[in-house]
Amino acid sequence: MNLKFIKEGITSPKGFMSSGISCGIKGKNLKDLALVMSASPCNSAGVFTKNKIKAAPILVTQNHLKSKTARAIIANSGNANTCTGKKGIEDAEKMCSLVAKESGIEKDDVLVASTGIIGVKLDIDSIENSVPHLVKKLDKEGYKDASEAIMTTDTFPKTLSVKFEIQGKPAVIGVMAKGSGMIHPNMGTMLSFITTDVNISSDLLEKALRESVRISYNRISVDGDTSTNDTVLIMANGLSGNEMIEKENEDYRIFLEVLEKLNVKIAKMIAKDGEGATKLIECRALNVPSERDGEIFAKSIICSNLVKTAFFGCSANWGRILDAVGYSGGDFDINKLQVCIGSSKGNIMVFKNGEPVKFSAGEAKDILSEDEVYISLDFNSGSHNVRCWGCDLTYDYIKINGDYMS
Amino acid sequence: MNLKFIKEGITSPKGFMSSGISCGIKGKNLKDLALVMSASPCNSAGVFTKNKIKAAPILVTQNHLKSKTARAIIANSGNANTCTGKKGIEDAEKMCSLVAKESGIEKDDVLVASTGIIGVKLDIDSIENSVPHLVKKLDKEGYKDASEAIMTTDTFPKTLSVKFEIQGKPAVIGVMAKGSGMIHPNMGTMLSFITTDVNISSDLLEKALRESVRISYNRISVDGDTSTNDTVLIMANGLSGNEMIEKENEDYRIFLEVLEKLNVKIAKMIAKDGEGATKLIECRALNVPSERDGEIFAKSIICSNLVKTAFFGCSANWGRILDAVGYSGGDFDINKLQVCIGSSKGNIMVFKNGEPVKFSAGEAKDILSEDEVYISLDFNSGSHNVRCWGCDLTYDYIKINGDYMS
Repeated sequence: MNLKFIKEGITSPKGFMSSGISCGIKGKNLKDLALVMSASPCNSAGVFTKNKIKAAPILVTQNHLKSKTARAIIANSGNANTCTGKKGIEDAEKMCSLVAKESGIEKDDVLVASTGIIGVKLDIDSIENSVPHLVKKLDKEGYKDASEAIMTTDTFPKTLSVKFEIQGKPAVIGVMAKGSGMIHPNMGTMLSFITTDVNISSDLLEKALRESVRISYNRISVDGDTSTNDTVLIMANGLSGNEMIEKENEDYRIFLEVLEKLNVKIAKMIAKDGEGATKLIECRALNVPSERDGEIFAKSIICSNLVKTAFFGCSANWGRILDAVGYSGGDFDINKLQVCIGSSKGNIMVFKNGEPVKFSAGEAKDILSEDEVYISLDFNSGSHNVRCWGCDLTYDYIKINGDYMS
Repeated sequence: MNLKFIKEGITSPKGFMSSGISCGIKGKNLKDLALVMSASPCNSAGVFTKNKIKAAPILVTQNHLKSKTARAIIANSGNANTCTGKKGIEDAEKMCSLVAKESGIEKDDVLVASTGIIGVKLDIDSIENSVPHLVKKLDKEGYKDASEAIMTTDTFPKTLSVKFEIQGKPAVIGVMAKGSGMIHPNMGTMLSFITTDVNISSDLLEKALRESVRISYNRISVDGDTSTNDTVLIMANGLSGNEMIEKENEDYRIFLEVLEKLNVKIAKMIAKDGEGATKLIECRALNVPSERDGEIFAKSIICSNLVKTAFFGCSANWGRILDAVGYSGGDFDINKLQVCIGSSKGNIMVFKNGEPVKFSAGEAKDILSEDEVYISLDFNSGSHNVRCWGCDLTYDYIKINGDYMS
């Protein structure tokens, strides 16, 4: 399927509006409060951090998702509302009830997410004062403000939508997300909110979400630290008018494919905009016995500090790549392994038949000086292909995360 | 047991001599070839990297250790002899046979180790030309030269010995080691060579080595990248004259305790001298249900780039510490968890009863400005205590590993 991605976002599907304002948490008039609202009830699903310590808004959202339906998402940046005890749960519930009251919907139909500093109680009064204005500003163009309001040290808002057809009817999926970042010294969170007007059962919606998350967000790493607040939410209001997708038929497969492609695009944006990063590194594990094997190999490589610093230095340091494959825990035959590095500027083989392949360091440096590069490992031992994404490790990562106290 | 550690090394036990010279691999007259030799046969054992890709010298050494005896270790720095195919194996074998020929011992009684660049064939001719000189220089004072000859980007040689008594007879264990470093752009290796004059069976020697490695070298991390060359070797020549230790009796327990304490000291030196590091970070997981739990928690923390950069910035960033505990995979009750940070300057509690404890950021910064600091987590859920060691992540780490191509 050839898809056209549009630089719009969560308000592109029929019936969705959004807004983003400054409520004062971040200060300096920076936007820090976002709202997404559907004109009608949505089948909804969420995928959350596997961290044992979960932020209060995640616990509240999981509870509100038991009905598998929702109408709205409220999210703040600047404070993660994590490790904040009972008060944290009360504050997250209150964020939902404020939106519900102001917009005349049920509290349980509001989902909530937070990103920012850990362990500081939320300034719920400022949020309370701001929600009426937030609801009033709901608009089709509001995706821009909303995508800014969830940013922390992201250097650009991540917002995108895609149009396609289901049963001959125009359908849209929109998304906004934020990556790992530090506006305060102690947080890093990935949030992604997805909207669609496709009519799909809540069970299949959840299934499609999980499947697409597995091969997109779960295949990126900026620094290996899994946040306490990671949240991906999807809301489908069915306004596109297709007959409800209730089976894993061709319609479901179309929806899944579009969702996957969209989430992969957003995930790559997040990896590319990792803290201090100068480039996106795509690692391809080709011809592996299973997807799990490919993930083990590719993730080990993109998480290696030594590989990440090598790519910052534009060095085709295949020794570090092989080292990371070797300690990944996966099984492989080094004599069957072929390793290439490349970018839009070209591609060179660096390892084959158990031995190094001679190459020009100058040519490698030129290829790796691009802002999107790849490592390709052909294991010649199966039929599965897996891609994972990371970024380089740079002086700016240290500056962002280590310099604030000096 | 109160032990006195001496700044000597592998030649402190009776019957051991050592030497270290420059053979030309590193250039600039830098020492790069080391030899340890016992006057009599030694029961010997080794522990090696778990990386699936193992350096040629490891394969050769594992083969020579099948007899569980050895007389000598030859080691070079500047070239890891890894991913070098059949020629690599031949070269590692040749290093052993050169020593054997020159000193009149069996080839199978020589062990070999290498550290340095991956994937470059060894300059075996230079080694061949230098071995006669290396053997001629064997001396009781040679531990100094040898400990320098195995260094890469280590900023100081790691050499130590300890005297104690077994059955009323004076006994000694000596050690030299090197940490993770880069003399060329693509390697990082830990080597540790231990000598002793204690008379102990090869089976118990191996058991004690494995046990001590588990709680020392296996509890440090500089950057999470397991090398292809990691090697710990021990040789016991029995010249102290004690009756051979053949059972897990009190003598064995004394030997094990001394070996553990010595290896912990050396492991901490390696962590403190991690690439670019400004400080040693000790992480204590207290009152955990099992040692394994403690390792999971403590290792997750010392491996977190966000914790490591926070400590570079002297920030008591407990949010990142809790985050790393949360994603470690271990199970715990956050309401029972107490978290402290400290150094020789003092100690402050930062988290208790599921909530933050207020503290002065200035006081924390002062405490964390020391070059040895600790994080203490009391899980109040068991009786095991585990310590792991790491270092901070700094601009110099990026400089050492990312700057060489620019």
